[in-house]
Amino acid sequence: MTEHSLWRFSRALHRAINERQSEDLAALLDDNVDWAVYGPIDMFPFHGARRGKAAVLEVCRQVADNIRVHRFERESMMLGVDSGASIMRYSLTALGSNRPISLRLAQFAQFSGGNLTSIRVVIDTFDLVEQALGRPIHLPKIA
Amino acid sequence: MTEHSLWRFSRALHRAINERQSEDLAALLDDNVDWAVYGPIDMFPFHGARRGKAAVLEVCRQVADNIRVHRFERESMMLGVDSGASIMRYSLTALGSNRPISLRLAQFAQFSGGNLTSIRVVIDTFDLVEQALGRPIHLPKIA
Repeated sequence: MTEHSLWRFSRALHRAINERQSEDLAALLDDNVDWAVYGPIDMFPFHGARRGKAAVLEVCRQVADNIRVHRFERESMMLGVDSGASIMRYSLTALGSNRPISLRLAQFAQFSGGNLTSIRVVIDTFDLVEQALGRPIHLPKIA
Repeated sequence: MTEHSLWRFSRALHRAINERQSEDLAALLDDNVDWAVYGPIDMFPFHGARRGKAAVLEVCRQVADNIRVHRFERESMMLGVDSGASIMRYSLTALGSNRPISLRLAQFAQFSGGNLTSIRVVIDTFDLVEQALGRPIHLPKIA
């Protein structure tokens, strides 16, 4: 039984971010990989859409410049033959401010021949923004 | 071939929200259902965690008081035997302000015997908050 592509990809991604070693990640990205991390790109230029291996490796370098991953936990998980989705809880440090950040996100990944062809990431971005700012944003109650 | 539990649940949920008819939804909720919608509960009191059928029906009534669903599209999807996960794009109206809201979320649902036992929803909450406020929140660039 071979390891699921999601585990290899996850390990390679975290190695690229925390150790700045992106060879494993490069080997697991489809040349035409379709990448989207939904979030406020004005604040986080490494959010947004990227297309192709070179663009994804570059955005992962930008992520590595800005955060360090300390821990992550998968809160929900689904695996298909060539796909995997999970809700994850990350403990990070924002390197510029040295602020600890606790982040919840959902990711949906598609693989072909073991390589990542598509990934979509939805983040609880308001919580992220408040932590990155280091202060709460006042909100009116709408309901 | 029977219909997947996720489709029945989705139909019942939208009926409860848009038509305020919650009988179908009530019949599909496990008595001890575990429900979590991650988001800023100060602004949206119907976000947060709920436990049990009565609490979930009540929070769905609060959602129905506050939004109307116009359209939704599943952008990514995974189905298991007793589970389903998707990234969805919703077009809503916020009833209080009459503002149109376009919302992206990821949901992970677990079923047992056709009934919902657990659901987790991650929302692109910053985008939601800005639309609900009707104005952008200025953000510094952190990277």
